[in-house]
Amino acid sequence: MSSSAPRRALNIDNINPHVKEARYAVRGELAVRSEEYRAKLAKGEGKDLPFDTVIAANIGNPQQLDQKPITFFRQVASLLENPLLLEHEDVLIKSLGYKADVLERARWLLKEVKSVGAYSQSQGAPGIRESVAKYIERRDGYPASGSEVYLSNGASSGVNTLMHVICAKPETGIMVPIPQYPLYTATLSVLNARCVPYYLDEGQAWGTSLEAIRTAYDKAVAEGTDVKAIAIINPGNPTGASLPADDIKSVLQFAAEKKLVVVADEVYQTNVFIGEFISFKKALRDLQKAEPGKYDDLELASLHSISKGMVGECGHRGGYFELIGFDPAVAAEIYKFISIQLCPPVLGQCFVELMVNPPKDGEPSYELYRKEYDDILSGLKKRATALYDAFKQMEGVECDSPQGSMYLFPTIHIPPKAVEQAKKEGRAPDEFYCFRMLDATGVCVVAGSGFGQKEGTLHFRTTFLAPGTDWTGRIVKFHQEFLKEFS
Amino acid sequence: MSSSAPRRALNIDNINPHVKEARYAVRGELAVRSEEYRAKLAKGEGKDLPFDTVIAANIGNPQQLDQKPITFFRQVASLLENPLLLEHEDVLIKSLGYKADVLERARWLLKEVKSVGAYSQSQGAPGIRESVAKYIERRDGYPASGSEVYLSNGASSGVNTLMHVICAKPETGIMVPIPQYPLYTATLSVLNARCVPYYLDEGQAWGTSLEAIRTAYDKAVAEGTDVKAIAIINPGNPTGASLPADDIKSVLQFAAEKKLVVVADEVYQTNVFIGEFISFKKALRDLQKAEPGKYDDLELASLHSISKGMVGECGHRGGYFELIGFDPAVAAEIYKFISIQLCPPVLGQCFVELMVNPPKDGEPSYELYRKEYDDILSGLKKRATALYDAFKQMEGVECDSPQGSMYLFPTIHIPPKAVEQAKKEGRAPDEFYCFRMLDATGVCVVAGSGFGQKEGTLHFRTTFLAPGTDWTGRIVKFHQEFLKEFS
Repeated sequence: MSSSAPRRALNIDNINPHVKEARYAVRGELAVRSEEYRAKLAKGEGKDLPFDTVIAANIGNPQQLDQKPITFFRQVASLLENPLLLEHEDVLIKSLGYKADVLERARWLLKEVKSVGAYSQSQGAPGIRESVAKYIERRDGYPASGSEVYLSNGASSGVNTLMHVICAKPETGIMVPIPQYPLYTATLSVLNARCVPYYLDEGQAWGTSLEAIRTAYDKAVAEGTDVKAIAIINPGNPTGASLPADDIKSVLQFAAEKKLVVVADEVYQTNVFIGEFISFKKALRDLQKAEPGKYDDLELASLHSISKGMVGECGHRGGYFELIGFDPAVAAEIYKFISIQLCPPVLGQCFVELMVNPPKDGEPSYELYRKEYDDILSGLKKRATALYDAFKQMEGVECDSPQGSMYLFPTIHIPPKAVEQAKKEGRAPDEFYCFRMLDATGVCVVAGSGFGQKEGTLHFRTTFLAPGTDWTGRIVKFHQEFLKEFS
Repeated sequence: MSSSAPRRALNIDNINPHVKEARYAVRGELAVRSEEYRAKLAKGEGKDLPFDTVIAANIGNPQQLDQKPITFFRQVASLLENPLLLEHEDVLIKSLGYKADVLERARWLLKEVKSVGAYSQSQGAPGIRESVAKYIERRDGYPASGSEVYLSNGASSGVNTLMHVICAKPETGIMVPIPQYPLYTATLSVLNARCVPYYLDEGQAWGTSLEAIRTAYDKAVAEGTDVKAIAIINPGNPTGASLPADDIKSVLQFAAEKKLVVVADEVYQTNVFIGEFISFKKALRDLQKAEPGKYDDLELASLHSISKGMVGECGHRGGYFELIGFDPAVAAEIYKFISIQLCPPVLGQCFVELMVNPPKDGEPSYELYRKEYDDILSGLKKRATALYDAFKQMEGVECDSPQGSMYLFPTIHIPPKAVEQAKKEGRAPDEFYCFRMLDATGVCVVAGSGFGQKEGTLHFRTTFLAPGTDWTGRIVKFHQEFLKEFS
């Protein structure tokens, strides 16, 4: 073997090029550097760093940032993990403060899954799927069926499943909002299919623009793309926007006209501060009612998750998607695809059930549940507003008022000297800005380029989950110094 | 729109053909029918059925078949789910029988993950990865590093990750043992890459045959396949075989000669009844020690899981893979790929830690742990032997004595008239036999064709997890009647 021959079977030049092409900035280089800082500080090193804590504002990870889990959920989960505790009803109730409905729910879930350590059906435990269907019915006022609900490993695995089935060839295209949560573009890269980007309208609080969608579609078709689906994230990630009813209706009408599957990523459906969340399912059923026959064949997949909302149980990896209007033969292929990975985490499935069927008014655990839920929601709103107010103080930073989800996505204007320096360092200007922010403040955000943004505009995404106001102060101070340095 | 125009965006003819090609018999048509029988019986219907229970012997799902979880694991998990219980140390210890080491472990794990509801690093929580590395060191007597351990969502997601990175183009081939657990072929189908089958040697207790491997490799290369990896399942699935040291050594030497990545699926490493499990990692390090320099660049990925063994916590979806000898740039792409799906279930990660670091002799929970572990192992061995004995009574059925894993994979000989009838019904003969078995007995097994088998041979795979002997009696009786019907 000559010394220049590759020594290993795999090297960076011969592995799957589509995996290499994928970009996922949310856990990219910035996040890796922030973890290095965190590790350094944890070891008591890092006296040279200009901050004493790292703030992970790059990812919606509520419990990492001190959000307390909902007591009812975790009490039930403790019994699911150790069902032998149910033999000590007295101790649970008298000494540990468990309420009767906690025990009752745990017993019911155990009957449904037998054991959280056993595989369930690949589509998820039937009883839990029925419970999800009932939630959807209450939410929308239209029937739903557990047979059309697929429990998943967070919403991400649901998106992955749907895209695997839809993307038939390299010319297949899926319309993706820009900016977007990069799961979509990353998955399309891995699948060697085409992203058909359509720009959200920053001037209209990041709403959808039918014109932008139509233009993007026509351009893609002219380029030979077989556009099969349109993804919408509502409330928006990274934008935080909550879509008005008219936007939703327009998207559905356009999808029906062009025969596109609608993939509605609705994981932030309870994270809404302004107005009211309208599901794509409800909007579709309204349309179908208004014009019978016209929308019967529209295919809609709606995704939800335990990771966000006031639940924030992302570490448990639970979620679901509902399929509406799909051909049964296609649904069977979806089932087969998910069965290869056996089943979603069963405890995560139970958390889905708890999320969609929380204690009701009058039940023993209701009062505490209500208080915890409301406190989290109002806390998020308070933090979002505080952050928004901080951005208002910052020169050259523009931001819409918080509407929903867990993010703000401000526009930033960066001085030409900074753009020049970024170029020298081989970075996009917003990325350069975010690295500088991390190095100066310990606050990790994600550069707008990680989500896509209109040519010539720059942004960053930050969660508003971190408690306190110290970290927002750090950002404001950094920004001033950054402008000064490059003025 | 003409009435013959497709009504929907997606139909069976335009979805991803590679998803359609995938076959995964473990949860296929037989399993679906068995679930229908189960649902029927649960509703109190099914008086017409010739059985009163359905036995899911198609899948290694221990806790669905009444295997009790390990008490220590579940006690710790209950505290991870509800950390507030740790404030009631007295109640836990005095009233609920929790031992001090349960509380201690829960506190340590909570420190490592902060909350089981929070995302961890995509590779898994660092402290848990270190614990896995220590386990590997104890097992093999060679150093291991947490930085080379990747926690996963069961072992299946690990296989999926590795194959995604390895399969660069349609000509890429991965050597897969036949018979095999169909995750491998299904994933290769989805990735549109080539399966390079090599036959295990049924005459040698389903061991590997270097000759068979070499022949399969040469044939594939002659056909233009770029063979990049070889997968081995040890102990075997579906075969139950436990590989001798010489087989392992030969595979490693062959892989080094041809520059192949070795993918060692070792999820049954503790399910060994005969001889002793030897890991591919240990065998590789032994080789490297014996002939310094010669094997330095061999790439090995070794997979393990909480689903099997005496743990049997498959519903929690935990596992890991260790990468040995991989190029850091390739490992970085593996990291990026897994980061797109965020992280494996954090509670599943904690179960991995509990599995690799169970109570030690002298610790308060040790005695019970040891007893439970030994009881499960001896129970499995007893059931395997009982099933093996039942097969010995059956005419035309040949089976190796149980060696390991959770399966037996007997050869069956089917009368020509039955083969004819199978053909009429459009089924493979072994599949026909298994459907007949299910319909007559309620016992669901998987036909050998679902795993691949040598031309002209027929088998089925059954777990030996189901308790009692009634169900084995049902199989024996069915077999007699089947032979009679088609004689």
